Amino acid sequence: MMKVNNVSKAHPRGNDIEDTARVFDILARANIIASTTESLELLSEMLDLIIDVCSASAGTMYLLDKGHQELVFQLVRGEKSDEALIGHRIGANQGIVGAAVQQKQAIVVDDLMHDPRWYGTVGSETIALRNTIAFPMLLRGEPIGAIQVFNFQRKPLQLIQMLGNRMSSEYEKAVLLKTSQEYSQRLETLVNLMMQISATLDRDQILNTIIDEAHSLLNAEGTSLFLLDEESNELVLYVSKGSNRIPVADIRIPADTGIIGYVVKTGEIVRLRDAQQDHRHYDGVDRISGVPTRALLAVPLRTPDIVLGRERGISEARIIGGLEAINKFDGEFTEADAQLLRSLAEQAALILHLSNLYSEADELFLSTIRALVAAIDAKDPYTEGHSQRVSEYSVAIAQELRLPPETVHHVRIGALLHDIGKIGVSDVILTKPGRLTAEEYEEVKKHPLIGARIIGQVNLLEAVIPALAQHHERIDGKGYPLGLSGDNIALIARIVAVADVFDALTSDRPYRPAIDLETSLDILRKSAGDHLDARCVEAFLHAYIQGKIVPQK
Amino acid sequence: MMKVNNVSKAHPRGNDIEDTARVFDILARANIIASTTESLELLSEMLDLIIDVCSASAGTMYLLDKGHQELVFQLVRGEKSDEALIGHRIGANQGIVGAAVQQKQAIVVDDLMHDPRWYGTVGSETIALRNTIAFPMLLRGEPIGAIQVFNFQRKPLQLIQMLGNRMSSEYEKAVLLKTSQEYSQRLETLVNLMMQISATLDRDQILNTIIDEAHSLLNAEGTSLFLLDEESNELVLYVSKGSNRIPVADIRIPADTGIIGYVVKTGEIVRLRDAQQDHRHYDGVDRISGVPTRALLAVPLRTPDIVLGRERGISEARIIGGLEAINKFDGEFTEADAQLLRSLAEQAALILHLSNLYSEADELFLSTIRALVAAIDAKDPYTEGHSQRVSEYSVAIAQELRLPPETVHHVRIGALLHDIGKIGVSDVILTKPGRLTAEEYEEVKKHPLIGARIIGQVNLLEAVIPALAQHHERIDGKGYPLGLSGDNIALIARIVAVADVFDALTSDRPYRPAIDLETSLDILRKSAGDHLDARCVEAFLHAYIQGKIVPQK
Repeated sequence: MMKVNNVSKAHPRGNDIEDTARVFDILARANIIASTTESLELLSEMLDLIIDVCSASAGTMYLLDKGHQELVFQLVRGEKSDEALIGHRIGANQGIVGAAVQQKQAIVVDDLMHDPRWYGTVGSETIALRNTIAFPMLLRGEPIGAIQVFNFQRKPLQLIQMLGNRMSSEYEKAVLLKTSQEYSQRLETLVNLMMQISATLDRDQILNTIIDEAHSLLNAEGTSLFLLDEESNELVLYVSKGSNRIPVADIRIPADTGIIGYVVKTGEIVRLRDAQQDHRHYDGVDRISGVPTRALLAVPLRTPDIVLGRERGISEARIIGGLEAINKFDGEFTEADAQLLRSLAEQAALILHLSNLYSEADELFLSTIRALVAAIDAKDPYTEGHSQRVSEYSVAIAQELRLPPETVHHVRIGALLHDIGKIGVSDVILTKPGRLTAEEYEEVKKHPLIGARIIGQVNLLEAVIPALAQHHERIDGKGYPLGLSGDNIALIARIVAVADVFDALTSDRPYRPAIDLETSLDILRKSAGDHLDARCVEAFLHAYIQGKIVPQK
Repeated sequence: MMKVNNVSKAHPRGNDIEDTARVFDILARANIIASTTESLELLSEMLDLIIDVCSASAGTMYLLDKGHQELVFQLVRGEKSDEALIGHRIGANQGIVGAAVQQKQAIVVDDLMHDPRWYGTVGSETIALRNTIAFPMLLRGEPIGAIQVFNFQRKPLQLIQMLGNRMSSEYEKAVLLKTSQEYSQRLETLVNLMMQISATLDRDQILNTIIDEAHSLLNAEGTSLFLLDEESNELVLYVSKGSNRIPVADIRIPADTGIIGYVVKTGEIVRLRDAQQDHRHYDGVDRISGVPTRALLAVPLRTPDIVLGRERGISEARIIGGLEAINKFDGEFTEADAQLLRSLAEQAALILHLSNLYSEADELFLSTIRALVAAIDAKDPYTEGHSQRVSEYSVAIAQELRLPPETVHHVRIGALLHDIGKIGVSDVILTKPGRLTAEEYEEVKKHPLIGARIIGQVNLLEAVIPALAQHHERIDGKGYPLGLSGDNIALIARIVAVADVFDALTSDRPYRPAIDLETSLDILRKSAGDHLDARCVEAFLHAYIQGKIVPQK
């Protein structure tokens, strides 16, 4: 065994002397190898070059895992079976190669079998190993790995140390580039996901997108999403297992359970190599999903302050749940993973919150007009609940007619408001027991136009006005107030007319009790084409048969 | 002059022969230089090494602009004044260096002054130039630039060609890494911008964020945003000039004007090196902003299909305007710039559209209850417009009290609905001319609780119910229906009570005409502390003095 001092200071001697032409030739080959940007290919070709330069029969390349102070077998040249060594780890001070790393210089062993540091892992089966050169791969003077060649016939130490160092520098660059490019790709995925999430106000669709896509962003086995139910102080679980997403709306855990409970409570990010080792881990979710959690990354679903507009102020930041990715396919979750998932979670929380605000505004509108309309109906015990029922029947007809959702929505609102004009008709007439006089009836007949005038104040309800103005028109032109006929009556009004007549028939009236269902349906059938629109009556009957019309008891 | 064949095949001769130790020494220096990842520093240090290796007194490094077939002076070593050459361009076949690039091999000129290709740009002032070596920087066999040294004393052609090629490869890697890292940074900026835009439903704030931030994403001089006004078929312009954003709400151009008009109409992205050369360019915007457009990148503001929810269907994709970045500081806009701006524009359009949907839902609610309440008020000519006025006065009081925007919003709605319970009181009593009987008055006194019962149906209006239930309570406990006193009466109800009393005083009544303003204010002042809340009365009077209360004429 002999040691060679730091190569840049050493003088060439023995068969370390190379002629210049051969050096340039080797450098030209190294330059070609260096032009690859794929890190593993680079290492592989460089190792082949070094084996070639030493006229050796086998070789090994290790990378140093600094955190664990271990050398990891990266490449093995020699026997095919030796490839099993790849990924195997030895202590960073173990063996001849460990000594070379510790001393930061090449070690030449001319008689391998008599060196006490040799423990023989390579080529033990078929290649007889006689000698070895081990030398560190130095980057800015510090080892990042090591190379070992066996059965060398030449030992150009200065040249191979220079190639090893070159390899270190090129490897670092290839890794930096790969890391940066992968990061860009993940950011691109994040941007796409953010846009996908933003393009819907449907809560379920937002949840599905996150659950189905978030784990691919992190190369993880699955994603679980938990929403905080503030009333019950529980976390409601949504699980994904690749494409087998389990819809688990009814699985709930107390809000302070498990790692996710900790994250939701504290707003902290938790990143673990093995969740099973953490005392906060709750394995109930593992049992539900059938996937035991190992590596885990959990982030809060936190909405930022949202500016609602100048008059409405700010909806304050709060945590609405948590997002958890488990079991990264290629190891542990990194800090970069945490930042990506945090960004996705923040956008998701934001859009979920916007979705809530939007549905609330929508619900506020609908439930308020429902309440007001119900109060107006309730002034006359005979019309109590009338508008709400007409709205439900009308929606069933509109859906039966396969009208687009926006139109169905207009039908719902128009039907709810169809009798709103009765605000302008005297209570005395509306609640009069017994038949009305001709004059009183003329007064009642004003309600469609009064309603249209009231709702005419609301620009955004323009589309529903015909339901108010024309629901007493008849297909045969004998209705009021204008005597419109056929398709001159808006579809929305023709729909409401059918629902309105059916509810009137099946309700008690001051002058008669409710007519039974069969007779009522028969009357509808007979009035199709003269009083009522035939297509709408047909749609009504169809919806009725399918149980979509539920008449009052 | 002599030519040297492709260096890897050439044999060393003359003073091209280097001893191996010196070669290794130079290679070690090259390795250290190569460990920098900053591309310009790398080129600079490599050029110094090559000048040193040749014992030369000056040198130049060019990069090849393949598109224009020009060599661009990148580095100049020699006289300080020669640095003015940096950025200067010559034809890729011009001069000795051009010849080396064309022939892909080194050219040695021992007597520079007699070479017809020499045109003397470097060191003409103080350094007398005698000889030169020019050689191409080859990457995978193709030139990406060239190096020229002057007044050399050694000509180790093989070595310097190898260093030049190494430089090409390292430079390529450094540029790739820098490009990738810059792209990541820009994606991070994009993600942050997307989140910033999403965290507001206030239209102006969304516009401001885009206008203030988009140009920094692209390193551009300014951003202009245009929104399409579909009614007038005009584009409304918002301009940014760095931090001097000009709010130009009233600057409008016909929708088919200029490049932005083309983009909004076709949905295409337009990217130009010089907008002044494009026939579509409209210089009106340049005049407004004071910034003449050169490089231009324009993208449509296109909302994707937005899922509103299962019942509400889809809001269909459409173009709502355009976004334009002008004058990139470091050259032309790239395809990557276009993709970034497109993503930002898409998210911006999406959030602008969500903001619209949200304000529409909000406006729909408010304008509908306004219309219904107005219709109920209008049944009695004496109360026409009453609820709307009480709402406006109440909001003025609430704002004077510096209540948070959410509470002000509740005050606005609660005041609007305060008398809604009159739906449940007979018209006959409500519209009775002259004084009511005791029994009739008892009937009227039910309206606060009837109102609370009606609106009690609406979960989201829980906060406004006290305005309905308690607006006839008095601070001294002598009010109705419950006889609450002092702070037991909700603040929102104490506010509405002041507004309600003031409107009643200043309105005609069946039994008296409207009381004049000064007397009405005096009555308010006197009732502070017994009938009305003193702080609310004070706030009302303060708002009145400042012109924030506009009583009915």
